[in-house]
Amino acid sequence: MEVSVIREILKVVSQPDMISLAGGIPAPQSFPMDIMNDLFAGVLERFGSQALQYDRSEGFTPFRQALAEFLHGKGIRVTADDLLVFSGSQAVLDALGKVMLSASTRVAVEAPTYLGALQAFAPYAPQYIRLQSDDQGLIPESLEAALKSNGVTMIYLVPTFQNPTGRTLPLARRKAIAALIQRYNALLIEDDPYRDLRYHGQTLPTIKQFAPDHVVYVGTMSKIFAPGLRLGYCAAPRAVHQWLVVAKQGTDLHTGTLNQALAAEYLNGGYLEAHLPKICHLYRPKLAAILAAIDKYLPAEFKCSRPQGGMFVWVQAPVGWDMQALYWEAIAQKVAFVPGQYFFAHAGEGAETMRLNFTMAQPAVLETAIKRLAGVIAAHKVDHALASA
Amino acid sequence: MEVSVIREILKVVSQPDMISLAGGIPAPQSFPMDIMNDLFAGVLERFGSQALQYDRSEGFTPFRQALAEFLHGKGIRVTADDLLVFSGSQAVLDALGKVMLSASTRVAVEAPTYLGALQAFAPYAPQYIRLQSDDQGLIPESLEAALKSNGVTMIYLVPTFQNPTGRTLPLARRKAIAALIQRYNALLIEDDPYRDLRYHGQTLPTIKQFAPDHVVYVGTMSKIFAPGLRLGYCAAPRAVHQWLVVAKQGTDLHTGTLNQALAAEYLNGGYLEAHLPKICHLYRPKLAAILAAIDKYLPAEFKCSRPQGGMFVWVQAPVGWDMQALYWEAIAQKVAFVPGQYFFAHAGEGAETMRLNFTMAQPAVLETAIKRLAGVIAAHKVDHALASA
Repeated sequence: MEVSVIREILKVVSQPDMISLAGGIPAPQSFPMDIMNDLFAGVLERFGSQALQYDRSEGFTPFRQALAEFLHGKGIRVTADDLLVFSGSQAVLDALGKVMLSASTRVAVEAPTYLGALQAFAPYAPQYIRLQSDDQGLIPESLEAALKSNGVTMIYLVPTFQNPTGRTLPLARRKAIAALIQRYNALLIEDDPYRDLRYHGQTLPTIKQFAPDHVVYVGTMSKIFAPGLRLGYCAAPRAVHQWLVVAKQGTDLHTGTLNQALAAEYLNGGYLEAHLPKICHLYRPKLAAILAAIDKYLPAEFKCSRPQGGMFVWVQAPVGWDMQALYWEAIAQKVAFVPGQYFFAHAGEGAETMRLNFTMAQPAVLETAIKRLAGVIAAHKVDHALASA
Repeated sequence: MEVSVIREILKVVSQPDMISLAGGIPAPQSFPMDIMNDLFAGVLERFGSQALQYDRSEGFTPFRQALAEFLHGKGIRVTADDLLVFSGSQAVLDALGKVMLSASTRVAVEAPTYLGALQAFAPYAPQYIRLQSDDQGLIPESLEAALKSNGVTMIYLVPTFQNPTGRTLPLARRKAIAALIQRYNALLIEDDPYRDLRYHGQTLPTIKQFAPDHVVYVGTMSKIFAPGLRLGYCAAPRAVHQWLVVAKQGTDLHTGTLNQALAAEYLNGGYLEAHLPKICHLYRPKLAAILAAIDKYLPAEFKCSRPQGGMFVWVQAPVGWDMQALYWEAIAQKVAFVPGQYFFAHAGEGAETMRLNFTMAQPAVLETAIKRLAGVIAAHKVDHALASA
């Protein structure tokens, strides 16, 4: 099981003095600790014992209402009834796997794609169809070829600040993809956790907006409130929606009521509006710091993505490099990352890639980490030279 | 899908003036509302931002430690490392289904058994082997016959105050069942949500204590703290344990950190110890009231279980009665229950049975409900007589 290998790999991350660029973890400084008491008091006052009681599988109504309003403000036109709340967006992906996938089904994914999606789908053992991407994300022609060859049960995509690459699909491609899934009557999972973590440039519309009946839009409170509350959600076409409710009921009955009530307070009280700029303000210099350090220290032949938001930078070394081997050498130098190969649905791809997270460490620490990584790469180059001498 | 049928049936429960004996829901008066502020303050002070952060799939370490100590005090000898935390005990059952079951596997269950377990296992499409029960629960000889015929992947049991019947396995049967699963090297799921809701009689040891390497012990905080926090847990044999962690990671990464931190405070601060007697004090007269009302109002040929704890009483009418038909007549009289047929793994069983919950309504309201139910039954008898005249 790949999952277990990654668990073993990432165990070392918690060693003392380790600088971790490995996680996909928000900085604790991004949590609204100063308002948590107010939120909790508001929940007890407004909802009382209801916040501790069993609730509907669909989600806590006040949270869904607040969420619908929040999404509306961003041009995503959904009602509270369209929304289903899950225990993190990971649980949305699991439910989609349960409802849609089996060993005889095919899922089209980017290469690389989000590791958590592969983990969620794994128990249902689907086959994967590899879509082609470039620096702007999924190439629409590649999707069309996959849809033409047919038999695609669903397509999984992170169009904005993709995990792991940080890439964002431009507007024209979003429209082209929306047109394609409508023409071929296909179902697209639009996983959109990083949308609000934009540090530069203009916000783009979702694909959901262009093809509402063909997209399951997946969102989360993890990056804009707190991941420890485990609050994800989706807006799915009706036929999928009703099966997701049945799956949800069998999986965990419903998502925690107290956490949903806290999120309702966070949204309704105007707290998110006030807090979100602080999160972006916290992460913007970190993105600048890691990109500057990469430019300064890494060899020119190591290409990296230039995201305008999100949590990750993707580094691609020349073919022949093995980042899994490099990983253990980096660990010895007290810096951790995720070898890129785990983000590919097909084995044997991505050995020369790595994912770097920039949200956890401070800017100066990010520079130190990249400098150490550059040292490991330089030493490795020498080793290579000696070995072939 | 049966699940959807039940959802439709139970939708009417929220109608105004409805007396619901349908849910499996704790009374809101059983929640420790008076200490929630203290617990929350304790969590922020002790754990700070850690309570809002991503955490281990296995569960929040301070909660697992507190839980291990709590269980130890009850003679269940597990360490924090043995425990895995899930999003409600429903999520334990889902994970067990994911790890253990497929269309080629067999699960041995009581008839009737817990509906939520059937819902959790349904997506994995196992076959069910029917075990025989009497007023004291599972008959060990029936289990032995099932194990002898072999091919049983796992056995699912609620040995204490079973949902739906309220039945409790006596000590001798617990020992006999432990001996059998050891002899046949079988895996037993011991689902134990109601253990602490004992209003009369002596606590019995778990089956886990007699066969620790053959039992997945499943517990929950839902009945002794608050169900809206969605905190379940299990202690499984090592080989199962490690696969459950992998399944858990793909399903929802981990269970809500804040809720686990609240539960750790609840256990460590001695709050549970002080609060649990209040819950039993609240429910004891309700159990007495529903049993007295059944004795007083229902026809003598309607047999009911006599539990010493838990949340449910099981009523069995003479063969020929159809409680699903009766349900809609009862709804018209503003009283709801769950027709018993949904608790059977095999279709066509249990038409003459019903499950009555006694924890939600006040004692006087329980009497009113049973009186109304008796009226519906009496009217139905007349209809029957007219129809056959």
